[in-house]
Amino acid sequence: MKEIIAVIRMNKVNQTKDALAEEGFPAFTCLKVSGRGKKKVDYQEIAEDLLKQKDIPNAVAEAVSEERRLLAKRLISLTVADQDAPKVIHTIININQTGNPGDGKIFVMSIGEAIRVRTGETGEQAIV
Amino acid sequence: MKEIIAVIRMNKVNQTKDALAEEGFPAFTCLKVSGRGKKKVDYQEIAEDLLKQKDIPNAVAEAVSEERRLLAKRLISLTVADQDAPKVIHTIININQTGNPGDGKIFVMSIGEAIRVRTGETGEQAIV
Amino acid sequence: MKEIIAVIRMNKVNQTKDALAEEGFPAFTCLKVSGRGKKKVDYQEIAEDLLKQKDIPNAVAEAVSEERRLLAKRLISLTVADQDAPKVIHTIININQTGNPGDGKIFVMSIGEAIRVRTGETGEQAIV
Repeated sequence: MKEIIAVIRMNKVNQTKDALAEEGFPAFTCLKVSGRGKKKVDYQEIAEDLLKQKDIPNAVAEAVSEERRLLAKRLISLTVADQDAPKVIHTIININQTGNPGDGKIFVMSIGEAIRVRTGETGEQAIV
Repeated sequence: MKEIIAVIRMNKVNQTKDALAEEGFPAFTCLKVSGRGKKKVDYQEIAEDLLKQKDIPNAVAEAVSEERRLLAKRLISLTVADQDAPKVIHTIININQTGNPGDGKIFVMSIGEAIRVRTGETGEQAIV
Repeated sequence: MKEIIAVIRMNKVNQTKDALAEEGFPAFTCLKVSGRGKKKVDYQEIAEDLLKQKDIPNAVAEAVSEERRLLAKRLISLTVADQDAPKVIHTIININQTGNPGDGKIFVMSIGEAIRVRTGETGEQAIV
């Protein structure tokens, strides 16, 4: 099994979620993260993101607080069978590739074991 | 060493934490995540979780905002010696298994190295 | 490639970020986590952290809410080439080692693959 971790733009989470579900991967964990790539932070992008938000004061506060100069991003994580990893990666790229810096990164890690708490099922039985 | 990652219900964090500490595993990291399994989201569960919260408006906002249709969950992470992994997994299942969908999942990953920042200790010395 | 994960004090994020950038590692993801080591929580530290915050009510609420007795920490994550891991670890220790409990921990994990979403570049090309 592989854990596929992707750090993507905030405004791409829903589209990515829906595209993955359509491909047969509904299970999904999402985290709020702040991050920076190798490029300088693009304040244009921050401004545009803020303008899309209803709760501006909070959003501004987040953007300029402790982790100032880091951008608010979302980290999504899925665990899938080895043979499904390329399809999941392709789907994430397809939705998130705008061609602009900040499109994000995908990381693939090996998972030793997965267990469904409800049933105790392990391995690929736990993630299908 | 193994990293044990579990995505569990919000209202199980304290019990899980206490049970792990009793078993000799007090070290613990907890993250707010939103997630979804393969099942459709159970709005009954959302409603019950909300009713337990004091700060309802915030909780409602979180539940229905950007990541709508994802449930607020908690991700907990512990790093333990290989031989302790089964005990930790058993403890987490024991506390979190209600038999209902949404009980969560546990993932086990190999950790190459662990270092305690304060002392520079490495390996299992760093995590005991 | 290696993922270097460090759980550090909230007030060390900016210094750590700047030190890593100076060493040639600007890419960086940061998460809000709450955690506990093997020691009992040091309420002195909580109090000092709170006093540094402008938004005290929120901070107090966070500190004493659901995950009470867990400390607010930050988790930072970088993916680097194998040969760069020691330099990154050394830089993190250098900034975060105060000698007091709560300095944090560093974990090193193997990453199977990294992909830059914008270009589709893989491997070390995706992370430089």
